[in-house]
Amino acid sequence: MGTHHPLRVFSGSANRTLAGQVVQHLETLRVAHKAAHPEDDSIGINEPVTLGRCTTKCFPDTETHVTIDQVVRDQDVYIIQPCSPPVNNHLMELLLYVDAFRRASAHEITAVIPYFPYARQERMAKSREAISARVVATMLEALRVGRVIYFDVHVAATQGFFNVPVDPLTALPALAGYFMKPEFQDAAIVAPDVGRAKFASRYAEYLKLPLVVMHKRREDDGKTKVTHVVGDIKDKIPIVIDDVIAGGSVLTQLDELVRVGARPEVYLAITHGVLLPKALDALANPLIRRLVISDTIEQPPAVQSHPKIAIVSVAELLAKVTWRIHSGASISDLIEKE
Amino acid sequence: MGTHHPLRVFSGSANRTLAGQVVQHLETLRVAHKAAHPEDDSIGINEPVTLGRCTTKCFPDTETHVTIDQVVRDQDVYIIQPCSPPVNNHLMELLLYVDAFRRASAHEITAVIPYFPYARQERMAKSREAISARVVATMLEALRVGRVIYFDVHVAATQGFFNVPVDPLTALPALAGYFMKPEFQDAAIVAPDVGRAKFASRYAEYLKLPLVVMHKRREDDGKTKVTHVVGDIKDKIPIVIDDVIAGGSVLTQLDELVRVGARPEVYLAITHGVLLPKALDALANPLIRRLVISDTIEQPPAVQSHPKIAIVSVAELLAKVTWRIHSGASISDLIEKE
Amino acid sequence: MGTHHPLRVFSGSANRTLAGQVVQHLETLRVAHKAAHPEDDSIGINEPVTLGRCTTKCFPDTETHVTIDQVVRDQDVYIIQPCSPPVNNHLMELLLYVDAFRRASAHEITAVIPYFPYARQERMAKSREAISARVVATMLEALRVGRVIYFDVHVAATQGFFNVPVDPLTALPALAGYFMKPEFQDAAIVAPDVGRAKFASRYAEYLKLPLVVMHKRREDDGKTKVTHVVGDIKDKIPIVIDDVIAGGSVLTQLDELVRVGARPEVYLAITHGVLLPKALDALANPLIRRLVISDTIEQPPAVQSHPKIAIVSVAELLAKVTWRIHSGASISDLIEKE
Amino acid sequence: MGTHHPLRVFSGSANRTLAGQVVQHLETLRVAHKAAHPEDDSIGINEPVTLGRCTTKCFPDTETHVTIDQVVRDQDVYIIQPCSPPVNNHLMELLLYVDAFRRASAHEITAVIPYFPYARQERMAKSREAISARVVATMLEALRVGRVIYFDVHVAATQGFFNVPVDPLTALPALAGYFMKPEFQDAAIVAPDVGRAKFASRYAEYLKLPLVVMHKRREDDGKTKVTHVVGDIKDKIPIVIDDVIAGGSVLTQLDELVRVGARPEVYLAITHGVLLPKALDALANPLIRRLVISDTIEQPPAVQSHPKIAIVSVAELLAKVTWRIHSGASISDLIEKE
Amino acid sequence: MGTHHPLRVFSGSANRTLAGQVVQHLETLRVAHKAAHPEDDSIGINEPVTLGRCTTKCFPDTETHVTIDQVVRDQDVYIIQPCSPPVNNHLMELLLYVDAFRRASAHEITAVIPYFPYARQERMAKSREAISARVVATMLEALRVGRVIYFDVHVAATQGFFNVPVDPLTALPALAGYFMKPEFQDAAIVAPDVGRAKFASRYAEYLKLPLVVMHKRREDDGKTKVTHVVGDIKDKIPIVIDDVIAGGSVLTQLDELVRVGARPEVYLAITHGVLLPKALDALANPLIRRLVISDTIEQPPAVQSHPKIAIVSVAELLAKVTWRIHSGASISDLIEKE
Amino acid sequence: MGTHHPLRVFSGSANRTLAGQVVQHLETLRVAHKAAHPEDDSIGINEPVTLGRCTTKCFPDTETHVTIDQVVRDQDVYIIQPCSPPVNNHLMELLLYVDAFRRASAHEITAVIPYFPYARQERMAKSREAISARVVATMLEALRVGRVIYFDVHVAATQGFFNVPVDPLTALPALAGYFMKPEFQDAAIVAPDVGRAKFASRYAEYLKLPLVVMHKRREDDGKTKVTHVVGDIKDKIPIVIDDVIAGGSVLTQLDELVRVGARPEVYLAITHGVLLPKALDALANPLIRRLVISDTIEQPPAVQSHPKIAIVSVAELLAKVTWRIHSGASISDLIEKE
Repeated sequence: MGTHHPLRVFSGSANRTLAGQVVQHLETLRVAHKAAHPEDDSIGINEPVTLGRCTTKCFPDTETHVTIDQVVRDQDVYIIQPCSPPVNNHLMELLLYVDAFRRASAHEITAVIPYFPYARQERMAKSREAISARVVATMLEALRVGRVIYFDVHVAATQGFFNVPVDPLTALPALAGYFMKPEFQDAAIVAPDVGRAKFASRYAEYLKLPLVVMHKRREDDGKTKVTHVVGDIKDKIPIVIDDVIAGGSVLTQLDELVRVGARPEVYLAITHGVLLPKALDALANPLIRRLVISDTIEQPPAVQSHPKIAIVSVAELLAKVTWRIHSGASISDLIEKE
Repeated sequence: MGTHHPLRVFSGSANRTLAGQVVQHLETLRVAHKAAHPEDDSIGINEPVTLGRCTTKCFPDTETHVTIDQVVRDQDVYIIQPCSPPVNNHLMELLLYVDAFRRASAHEITAVIPYFPYARQERMAKSREAISARVVATMLEALRVGRVIYFDVHVAATQGFFNVPVDPLTALPALAGYFMKPEFQDAAIVAPDVGRAKFASRYAEYLKLPLVVMHKRREDDGKTKVTHVVGDIKDKIPIVIDDVIAGGSVLTQLDELVRVGARPEVYLAITHGVLLPKALDALANPLIRRLVISDTIEQPPAVQSHPKIAIVSVAELLAKVTWRIHSGASISDLIEKE
Repeated sequence: MGTHHPLRVFSGSANRTLAGQVVQHLETLRVAHKAAHPEDDSIGINEPVTLGRCTTKCFPDTETHVTIDQVVRDQDVYIIQPCSPPVNNHLMELLLYVDAFRRASAHEITAVIPYFPYARQERMAKSREAISARVVATMLEALRVGRVIYFDVHVAATQGFFNVPVDPLTALPALAGYFMKPEFQDAAIVAPDVGRAKFASRYAEYLKLPLVVMHKRREDDGKTKVTHVVGDIKDKIPIVIDDVIAGGSVLTQLDELVRVGARPEVYLAITHGVLLPKALDALANPLIRRLVISDTIEQPPAVQSHPKIAIVSVAELLAKVTWRIHSGASISDLIEKE
Repeated sequence: MGTHHPLRVFSGSANRTLAGQVVQHLETLRVAHKAAHPEDDSIGINEPVTLGRCTTKCFPDTETHVTIDQVVRDQDVYIIQPCSPPVNNHLMELLLYVDAFRRASAHEITAVIPYFPYARQERMAKSREAISARVVATMLEALRVGRVIYFDVHVAATQGFFNVPVDPLTALPALAGYFMKPEFQDAAIVAPDVGRAKFASRYAEYLKLPLVVMHKRREDDGKTKVTHVVGDIKDKIPIVIDDVIAGGSVLTQLDELVRVGARPEVYLAITHGVLLPKALDALANPLIRRLVISDTIEQPPAVQSHPKIAIVSVAELLAKVTWRIHSGASISDLIEKE
Repeated sequence: MGTHHPLRVFSGSANRTLAGQVVQHLETLRVAHKAAHPEDDSIGINEPVTLGRCTTKCFPDTETHVTIDQVVRDQDVYIIQPCSPPVNNHLMELLLYVDAFRRASAHEITAVIPYFPYARQERMAKSREAISARVVATMLEALRVGRVIYFDVHVAATQGFFNVPVDPLTALPALAGYFMKPEFQDAAIVAPDVGRAKFASRYAEYLKLPLVVMHKRREDDGKTKVTHVVGDIKDKIPIVIDDVIAGGSVLTQLDELVRVGARPEVYLAITHGVLLPKALDALANPLIRRLVISDTIEQPPAVQSHPKIAIVSVAELLAKVTWRIHSGASISDLIEKE
Repeated sequence: MGTHHPLRVFSGSANRTLAGQVVQHLETLRVAHKAAHPEDDSIGINEPVTLGRCTTKCFPDTETHVTIDQVVRDQDVYIIQPCSPPVNNHLMELLLYVDAFRRASAHEITAVIPYFPYARQERMAKSREAISARVVATMLEALRVGRVIYFDVHVAATQGFFNVPVDPLTALPALAGYFMKPEFQDAAIVAPDVGRAKFASRYAEYLKLPLVVMHKRREDDGKTKVTHVVGDIKDKIPIVIDDVIAGGSVLTQLDELVRVGARPEVYLAITHGVLLPKALDALANPLIRRLVISDTIEQPPAVQSHPKIAIVSVAELLAKVTWRIHSGASISDLIEKE
């Protein structure tokens, strides 16, 4: 592999399933590499890749406690922890791990945060707020994280909140793959608001489908907001895209699409499946055919087996990226592009 | 007051009762000052002290959102937020407020954290842990807090985790005041473990009572730990002191005191009333006469009206400290001493 | 004014006209304030506001040299310097001024950068680029700027590149004011690409006009990009908005608007008049009726008297913001909103 | 050894004897490793470990001057320098070495400070003092030390003064080893004050001996302090423990132990032999049988041959720790535990 | 005075005489100011300026301990401490004071270091040394000093080692004043080596005297260094200038001046009187008429009454500078110029 | 080579010729090394050294844009960019490259700046200026450069503006080599002003020639400055040395040398050939025989073929230094000495 520091992958408590799959894919890559390069005896190349041992405890007084249960001295550590709900607990756990790995003399610490928290609070929407996404970046850097990997954050400029290298990955190819079937040739990509137009346009280009933008405008009374549909959705299957679903306010706007002529069979492609009960309820709407999400966030069985939900995996992509970073190879074909 | 920047006190969501009382005491101090110095027309001296307007929201996806609802430009801001359970939520809320106040151009931000979180994780108890109390300090400083005020942290050296000024207050006089009655002249101060011996010795000196130290030692088999009582508790009323009660493991050791001769009427004086259900249950033990705590942490009605619990207030002390800091006066008679 | 540090406004060499006007407006505000509050004798309130004396030299070897020609010790300094072309010279001049003011013991330094440089390089568009806007922020902060004020940067999250307070102003009301006439009631706001949709929607809402989004999509051959017009522009007057015009590539897309039915009389409302020769040439296109820009950037006489160009001023807004910041008053009604 | 950067051990002027012994032990470890792993040809594994060449001069004007007399580029440097008296000279010498090593492009610099200075000034004992131990940490980190190793600092939380990894070693096993003889089965461990109770309890557990705590309390007049002995020392041999002896105030309290019944043969086990003349004089007290210290501090011949002083060495432990750190192996069984 | 934070002057232990005189001059300035501006009632203007109360202890174990014995909260603190021999003790004392003042919430801390230590170690003279003057600057800034004032450092660029404002003062006018008598109209200024040529040229210009430069050159054997005298000293009185005398190697070169024709009556004007015994001895050389030094460093009686030594004071200059900084006035006519 | 990270040399746009030659010399060194050590198979030792691919664009709006066109992950990057005129553009280009390399995960970034910009603004010559050379250092460090290499900066202390290692190279041996011919045995080294005396003395020692110092002194009227020649130039060939020529003010002083007796055939040895038109014109002066410069700055053909200009190369020296740094070998014999 041409590397000097053993690779170690650890998982916080937020998505051990994903971490386990990443490790499996890494082991496959290692075996393939070794088969192709039997002469390579670089550090760690002859040991199976396994998930590092570490323990997160949530004390009864709600403090979080982490321990690393094996040597990490001089090793390259990847800690996988999406900051899904409960967000603050998962974030604090991640921060404590970064501190623990640094104090345990890890060589470099990569925070793999498939779901980056507070991504929509990336500027002050009005005066006297926090820029919470920057707070997260500031804290990670204050604890001396060495690199950050995340998927589909709300705004690309979030990269610039960091001084350390950031690898912005996207689940777009995985999610879009679901729609590469003849039945979707009459579909259109729908941005649920003007801020999502650019992200939607990347789906539109990838799938060669037209673009439609929903646009809420305040009416004359200055209070009610009315949704306009900009672009032509008539007789088309709407594929509504977004980065995160959360409370599912996007689901309440679908009627408007049909009102202006869309076919009453709506699909959604949303990277991060933060699925609140309200959102799950809203899926009952007969207009909705399918919600496609990725596995950046661990899902309970009820979601995994939900008839209207399809989950695509980013584990293999994460494994590839990790392998290449560790090998000093380029990942430019794998990261988010504009 | 001789000051240039208006004083503003804000409260996070953790203990608005305490913040409200601090503000009332401040207003009393202001009125008294104005009566004594009618010629003083320094900034803000003629306006009543009120609690600043700000709003904390907990979004359904568990992200925290804060807004400041009035101008704070060029003002000296005190934000009161004990990081009681749920610790990570209260801590993140505090951090977001610090960011918001700084971005809103507050002149100086003082984090008043009556209960400082992760105080017992102030060193690595074993290898490869986080020093979580330092993580908290590092994050507050990365967001440019200007000063920190807290009560009775586990270890005095925690001050040194900060570069900014720290004012370490103590609830000891308030709690000890409870015991300044003739009936306690035969009492003894009990440190529940050797690490608490120094803190206990301050109670002993304050109340002029003898000191006893409980000491757990591993037995020959290397596993069981046996509690020894160092010092003479015979026929004395034990007053067990501690900084935080939490799960109440201290409550399970009381029988040993009686076994070696203590009177079967145990009192506890504990600064921070983190009271888990288990601890509340343990209070049923007939040996226990009274648990005295302070109001650094907001308590539910069940605790407030609990027949075995007495609550003493630190609000007036906090108000005095705030007033003096704001006036550029000395607080050295009010802070924790050794 | 209730302030402790005298206000001083300085100008770099990039736009002394704007700085001069800001100072005049400030003097008007001072006189009005004094008339309304004759009893106010706070520092500086009785002296006219004038432009601070400082000198920029460009040495023959192309190094920049700055001197401050009056005392600034303990004063609040505002240095106005849009980083218009030649961008790197204007930026370096600004950075040297920040260093000089700090070393001369100014109390606080506010960098007023009406045109923020490198604003469109706010993320890595592809791998292995700089995030140049963050480089600018990092350098300003390394030299300890105290606050930044700018107009209409490309992406709102640029605020988060800074730890210090940023006041993001917008020329939108000034530019939109031009279109508040009956003749534009059949107009539509046009975003020249999907990334501008959100900015355009703010014009649409302000003027209560419909929104149209231009969208370039790569065709089947993977090379040619074809512009689609999303939304209904038929028989409408297009008002194309943008933050900066630069080379004027936006001007080459206007035919497409007319091709899909727009009225052949196009208006443009663009904050920053970076006007390259190519752009000036393109204005000859008879489709174009008027280009409305602000005075964030100093314009040569040829532009000032150009028959198709209208310039609106942000000087009064800047003066108001400066005055209020200096007085500790709220500016939330004046800053960019979402 | 599996390492990439040659290991180099340097010594400041404070304890070249200890440094020389550490290097000898490292060479023994290297030879043993090579014998066990003849195939290992990692960097430096075939060269003897020797003490690096560097020169400290104390100029006549009392300025310190350091030079490194061999290449250290890309090497892992360990600089051994206990900050024994004259403390400020030894500390400044260490700081200058860290600067020199960094500027000479060493890969990582480990400050091995067997005696960490200002360890007892780890919090403000009263208002308006320095936290001197943090000052030391801040300066070492400002000069970019990469790791710190020390022995038995006064308070464990001192670790948290650093952001870089700290390896807190203890001389306890070496010192306690002295007492693992049948003649000490009736001994008791004595903490000379309440702040040392925890440290003493570790000796008590290690040697399975009872614990006694001395406790000074201010009397009614508020001035005199009287020493109380908490716990049962009757007919026992007192082994008084401490981290540093310095002026030897501990030696003046021994009579009190005998007064309450201890056997008149007192032993002391103290890590750091800072031995002022006053302390050496006090050793004449016939109650004192033996003072056991470690070699963290270099001792003059008069101490080395003193009939009442025994010196145990930490050189082998330091060599082991260094070897393992350099090999990326765990040292968790060698560091201070709680 | 137009200032908001009371002025407080403190003295470390290095030169309390100078500090006392500075305070007296400040009091004179205050009284004069008040007489001229009786209406001025700004903070502190009605109280006499006195020396702040603080205590430095040197513990028997050679650790330094400092306490501040009065409130400094929100005050502007000037701590006067030349880092004369013992340099490291005086430097550490200064650093501890900076830490103590910051933790005691001083508003701004100015380190007045009349003799800046390690000034001649301002670059690596050969490979693998420390840049010790930068180490001092780095440490002062790490502890958050707010401003530095010093006299005649070896190299002007030392200013640039700091990010905070530096006021570089010079004793040149005071020292040169001594030579403004007719008897020196045939004198010449002598730079003792080429590195001092620039400093000497400032004396030459100030006194309108010719300049001579001594220049040591290695001879053909590559070892012996021979001193050349560049310029015309024939029949002139040499006035040898330097920043610091220290060991007095400059005194050993004087014969060479006479050898090439200088009058055998040599004067020296040297800012900092670091006077080692060797230097005092060398003064016996009958060639030497007078050594003029300043009082940046406190001198023992033997020096004060030495028949060949004249001492001029910088106290009034320091008081003026302090007063003006505190009043927000310009000091540009008082600082070192080029 | 014993190294772990591949060596990559990149060039900005300022001097691709020099960069190309450095790469050629490196390849020669690699081939020679491999021939001498055929068994060495360390990373990269078997691939030819070539110039890394990267692209600088100057956009029409004068913003600079850089891209790195190959993987640099985990590699040791040397970016060669003298900041010759246009200084600010070349400097900004360098800063953007440092940002881009860091974000692309280069292992260590060495900025090779043969001509360091703003070197003569290394202190405040008068009040209220920037210390521009420190601004450059601060910005490079804020972007996390790992090491800096430059040639002949104006003042050696500039090293101390950096915390990272600086390798100060000198073109002196290359330039002085030109004069090691018998015809120059009657020459003298001339420092054009007192500030250059030390630099000149190094030439004097290297070539064993006498030293002369020019010295401008203000006359009685306080305005005119008159040049004095200190030292004996009679009948000697003057070799005037300097670090940079720029506007060529040095060229206007040459008549004075001849006036006091120098032979009317003046040579100049000047490291950095910043040659403004004015300077080129001044070369016509018949007194001037030859101007010897180095190739730190790329020269246009008119200079390269100028009959009075000789250019010596530093490419081989730079290659040697780079090779040794990369190999972990000493460069102390190659760097600037004093």
